[in-house]
Amino acid sequence: MAPLTLAVAVEDTRPDLSAIAAGADVAIRYATPAELPDAIDGADALLVWAFTAGGVADAWPRAAALRWMHVSSAGVDRVLTPQVVASDVVVTNVRGVLDDAIAEYVLGLVLAFAKDLPGTLRRQGERRWEHRPTERLRGARALVVGPGAIGRAIGSLLGGVGMGVDAVARSRRDGDATFAAVHGQADLGAVIGDYHYVIVAAPLTDGTRGMLDAGAIAAMAPDARLINVARGPIVDEEALTAALLRGDIAGAALDVFHDEPLPAEHPLWRCPNVIISPHMAGDFVGWRDSLLGVFLDNFARFRSGRPLLNVVRKELGFVV
Amino acid sequence: MAPLTLAVAVEDTRPDLSAIAAGADVAIRYATPAELPDAIDGADALLVWAFTAGGVADAWPRAAALRWMHVSSAGVDRVLTPQVVASDVVVTNVRGVLDDAIAEYVLGLVLAFAKDLPGTLRRQGERRWEHRPTERLRGARALVVGPGAIGRAIGSLLGGVGMGVDAVARSRRDGDATFAAVHGQADLGAVIGDYHYVIVAAPLTDGTRGMLDAGAIAAMAPDARLINVARGPIVDEEALTAALLRGDIAGAALDVFHDEPLPAEHPLWRCPNVIISPHMAGDFVGWRDSLLGVFLDNFARFRSGRPLLNVVRKELGFVV
Repeated sequence: MAPLTLAVAVEDTRPDLSAIAAGADVAIRYATPAELPDAIDGADALLVWAFTAGGVADAWPRAAALRWMHVSSAGVDRVLTPQVVASDVVVTNVRGVLDDAIAEYVLGLVLAFAKDLPGTLRRQGERRWEHRPTERLRGARALVVGPGAIGRAIGSLLGGVGMGVDAVARSRRDGDATFAAVHGQADLGAVIGDYHYVIVAAPLTDGTRGMLDAGAIAAMAPDARLINVARGPIVDEEALTAALLRGDIAGAALDVFHDEPLPAEHPLWRCPNVIISPHMAGDFVGWRDSLLGVFLDNFARFRSGRPLLNVVRKELGFVV
Repeated sequence: MAPLTLAVAVEDTRPDLSAIAAGADVAIRYATPAELPDAIDGADALLVWAFTAGGVADAWPRAAALRWMHVSSAGVDRVLTPQVVASDVVVTNVRGVLDDAIAEYVLGLVLAFAKDLPGTLRRQGERRWEHRPTERLRGARALVVGPGAIGRAIGSLLGGVGMGVDAVARSRRDGDATFAAVHGQADLGAVIGDYHYVIVAAPLTDGTRGMLDAGAIAAMAPDARLINVARGPIVDEEALTAALLRGDIAGAALDVFHDEPLPAEHPLWRCPNVIISPHMAGDFVGWRDSLLGVFLDNFARFRSGRPLLNVVRKELGFVV
């Protein structure tokens, strides 16, 4: 086989690519964001290992030789610039690896709200014994925004514990195997008020940016909670903050934000009834090894000319 | 029908018994613990509405006319004195009403540990963004101590989300529908080390008191957590406290205690990796109405001479 050059965009950690380096005629160039323009020059393939995908857009003008870019995350919004979309470069991601862990995380957040675990821990800190009745999952209704692989894993898990689970997709459809009803995105404002939990699991695209806007949040039920494990810009953070401060909705659990890390001065940190976590919903113990496995599998396919897995439909912004 | 006298042991709240009082020749005597001896004298039936069952034991010498005692909780340990067990009084409880809510609560605690929700909330209070990988439920192993109605609901729910769930019963048995394996209590120390979560759901009886003793706790795995939603005295609280302070096990979530409310000076409040809740696992919104419904159903049966539901096998200490 012809020699190959693989650029690897890294920040804090490097993947262990010894399996590749040992066996074949492959040049591997690890590169920080600043080093990436030189590294990408002449490279056949790019592994975006750095979660933030820092430097990819800046390096792109020198990616003339690039044929394949693999992104080690489920969302590819950070790399899909207009130039990347317009190019012939094939983009793949890690679809499937994080789904079940994210679904478990969402169930944990739902139960934290239903059983008021934050309230229990707060009272524990004050050594205060104060009995409160708690909410049942059975019979509670959840709306999953984005019924892709992750949304479907969430729907299955929540449905399995007795919740009623519907979804919002680009367009309405009947007969879904996981969701009792799949509403079209245009109807979001009309249906969102029927749900106790609104769970954002959509990819960030031009079609989903700002989808949970002030109007949608205002249409939520007063006893409803918003959970976002997808991407921050799908939700209007200012409108959400205001709604939480006014008590218009019962709570929010946010794992993703417009700016990450969430700035220390951001009012969301101290809003009432909010759970803030640092973009970790899908990152189970050993997740980096699993992410690496997906890349190595695809790399073997790339080398031998077989079809790649998890090819992103770039004009849509996700794997179909 | 003959006139009846119903004594009702209350503390903070009274049940709404207007459905009884309006329709029939029934004298209802609400009584605080101090008033209970006079109220029980000559009563045909006793409804123990007060959760702590305070005053029942003291009033018992004057319960000569009593034929039936209904306890508005799942556990009947607080009323089953030797005198009550030796008497002809039929004892019933609320078996079934709280099972699913308790199972949900346990799942919430398991997820709180697996996803380190307390750690996330603690960092949130400090506005600290610190990513950590979290544990998966799928593949984690749970041991339910006490496969009665509540234990079985817990087993079903945890199994449904992908955990491997076994049980400990009085004696070993094969072919259980809910649990992959049911160990005998005598083997607890030998098997307890194989589980990530040990969940106490047994009734408090002479056979279970102190069952989770220092030896059983010492045999737990270093990465295991103990969850108790049953009764405090099933667990050796001193041994557990010491194990937590030494870091011998990874955590504990306790909803029940030797002394309730847990005294403010008790070291458990501040042990590391502990979640303390005020005996509320089963108490869902509307639970008192559900508890009342079970009593009213049984009261109608009592009046018309039909068999009562949820009759406690007093020598065992639970409904078979």
